[in-house]
Amino acid sequence: MTTKELLQQAKAAAPVLARTDTERKNRALLAMAEALEAETGAILQANILDLEAARGHISPVMLDRLALNADRILAMAGGIRQVAALPDPVGRVRKRVVRPNGLVIEQVGVPMGVIAIIYESRPNVTSDAAALALKAGSACVLRGGKEAFRSANAIVDAMQAGLEAADLPAELVQLVQDTSRTSANELMTAVGYVDLLIPRGGAGLIRACTEHARVPCIQTGTGICHVYVDKDADQAMALRIIENAKTSRPSVCNAEEVCLVHREIAAEFLPKLRTRLVDDRIADGKPPVELRLDPAAAAIIDGTPAGETDFDTEFLDYILAVAVVDDADQAIGHIALHSTGHSEAIVTANAETAERFARAVDSAAVYVNCSTRFTDGGEFGLGCEMGISTQKLHARGPMGLEELTTTKYVIQGSGQIR
Amino acid sequence: MTTKELLQQAKAAAPVLARTDTERKNRALLAMAEALEAETGAILQANILDLEAARGHISPVMLDRLALNADRILAMAGGIRQVAALPDPVGRVRKRVVRPNGLVIEQVGVPMGVIAIIYESRPNVTSDAAALALKAGSACVLRGGKEAFRSANAIVDAMQAGLEAADLPAELVQLVQDTSRTSANELMTAVGYVDLLIPRGGAGLIRACTEHARVPCIQTGTGICHVYVDKDADQAMALRIIENAKTSRPSVCNAEEVCLVHREIAAEFLPKLRTRLVDDRIADGKPPVELRLDPAAAAIIDGTPAGETDFDTEFLDYILAVAVVDDADQAIGHIALHSTGHSEAIVTANAETAERFARAVDSAAVYVNCSTRFTDGGEFGLGCEMGISTQKLHARGPMGLEELTTTKYVIQGSGQIR
Repeated sequence: MTTKELLQQAKAAAPVLARTDTERKNRALLAMAEALEAETGAILQANILDLEAARGHISPVMLDRLALNADRILAMAGGIRQVAALPDPVGRVRKRVVRPNGLVIEQVGVPMGVIAIIYESRPNVTSDAAALALKAGSACVLRGGKEAFRSANAIVDAMQAGLEAADLPAELVQLVQDTSRTSANELMTAVGYVDLLIPRGGAGLIRACTEHARVPCIQTGTGICHVYVDKDADQAMALRIIENAKTSRPSVCNAEEVCLVHREIAAEFLPKLRTRLVDDRIADGKPPVELRLDPAAAAIIDGTPAGETDFDTEFLDYILAVAVVDDADQAIGHIALHSTGHSEAIVTANAETAERFARAVDSAAVYVNCSTRFTDGGEFGLGCEMGISTQKLHARGPMGLEELTTTKYVIQGSGQIR
Repeated sequence: MTTKELLQQAKAAAPVLARTDTERKNRALLAMAEALEAETGAILQANILDLEAARGHISPVMLDRLALNADRILAMAGGIRQVAALPDPVGRVRKRVVRPNGLVIEQVGVPMGVIAIIYESRPNVTSDAAALALKAGSACVLRGGKEAFRSANAIVDAMQAGLEAADLPAELVQLVQDTSRTSANELMTAVGYVDLLIPRGGAGLIRACTEHARVPCIQTGTGICHVYVDKDADQAMALRIIENAKTSRPSVCNAEEVCLVHREIAAEFLPKLRTRLVDDRIADGKPPVELRLDPAAAAIIDGTPAGETDFDTEFLDYILAVAVVDDADQAIGHIALHSTGHSEAIVTANAETAERFARAVDSAAVYVNCSTRFTDGGEFGLGCEMGISTQKLHARGPMGLEELTTTKYVIQGSGQIR
């Protein structure tokens, strides 16, 4: 089926879901989880074909992301059940006002309609995204990466079987059958068919969407996250936070990429940082962090001299750019210039400095004395997440179910005119 | 100054405003209102030049929109004072959660940064938009219509004097000096300089923004609004609502353009509708409404046969398209096909039908037993308005101060890592 036809089917099916009550949506989600488990064999078979085709073409890390096993499928089904357990954002009255003329004005959560998601190779995104869109009352059109194509098809087949078991149209969850750039462009320009486009992927995909998208789009993802160590920092806490932010999962968008250190403590702190991130980790048999140092930091500790682009790079690796700044204001200025607006942290015991930093830094999440790694729907208590918005419109930070819905005003009158 | 330079200045000035507290923003707004009144002479002089240049080139209605007098300037100053009296959306904690690990997560209202507004000839939009942007903590770059160019410059001069009187940078309110299409395109594509673009104007402008905008944009305005008269309607109420929705101010976006009538009552209701909108109004010396009738309606009353585009036209005039439908579901289907998603109303005494209509119609505002004319920031109790969003992302319906801000998460920790 062509992408256009899929979109038409999704659009036609969406109103059915918009009318479906919470109980039945949850029933469908549970049936989808069950179908996923029941089809484990078929999904693993498809995944083996994907892995065979991809081997040699993509990195071992990417191969691991692509690989499924029975446990991972169980986890995917568990994720769907978690979404079923979340409160329904559709129909929730967000605001209510009774006007002097007697009009009762309610702002009510309603579905978007059709949500399109462009993503890459992790097969679990297929089931996560579909479950979230469904619970939010929207049909979804999924366009995954070509490496995971067979796996995604098998997963969608199972989910569609689940939908039908709950008497909902299978067309509510669609997988685009063309994984070339053409289909991504078709989704970006499907005005009237796509109510919300969510690109989940690298900087290239996000840039393509900024340039080409004609449909409403939420940018996600890219994170050049900073940790600023103030002169009034608890330095032991700073070391713990930096090691966590940098090394607990370097490939994710909320990992730290840049460390800024107050000049007054640089001579004391930087050697400790090097010991913690390089020497101690080698001694513990963990991958050490490569430090890319600005001239002031390089005058204090050993490391790689920072190149021109090192403070503007999302390394997603065991690499940390380090610079010395004169004070919190210079840190704020550096972040304003180099950040992608994702997550930044300050470590300081000075409440006034913390407050100034939190107020001035214009990013989706600003942390005081904790790791940037908490920017995550689950950690924020949303129960789930469809990515991290780094834009200012509609959603900023982790996107949960509420961010996947829109609102309308419903006004009850008794003949009022103006 | 070039548009690029204006944008750079606005971007540079925006952080100053973001740091400014409510009291000082309000002081600036009051100083702007005072300056506007003090400069009445200069503004009227500029307006006379605008009117002289425009006479013969634009319609009498447009000339009236363009014309200022001392009262209108007083009203503009009054509008600014009203904005000063509104609560500040910046710094307001919208959500707060304490997580099991002790993290305190707050979602806080913060300024957009730079808001650009493209609008047409009404000079009062210049002061309204600037006041709203300022209160929302954002610098604004205004691009008005060429007919009002001298008036807008005089108004902006006065407002900048007010800003300086309150020790804020004049660059926070900027007027684009080029009124050609080039400058509109420059604003639409000023990625990194414009955080939010609001086009206020006709369908052509909105379409241009959909096609060309690379910056975040909120579509406003176009309203093909429907009133559906159900078989269970209080028909006297329906007539009152329709006359109000159609004729109280036909040139605005929340005016009714299409009336749908349930087949069972068509033979009884349509003659009353004709009497009310045509004969009674002629007798009262008021402009009658031209009825454009579908075949079923034309079989019952006299009127103009509806042409192919009459159910897809924002007349903004004393014209009403009328169609007969089989039931509420067909009305809902017709609206889904022809509406611009602005405002629709049902008149019915049947609570179940009203509920079905309110749930199924996917527009920014859905009315039960009242006029569509209430879609307005003031009528909704927002105290002001920067236009009516007809899109689903970020804002839907009247946009007040909250819709002109974004949020960020501020997270307080005590050394938490993940």
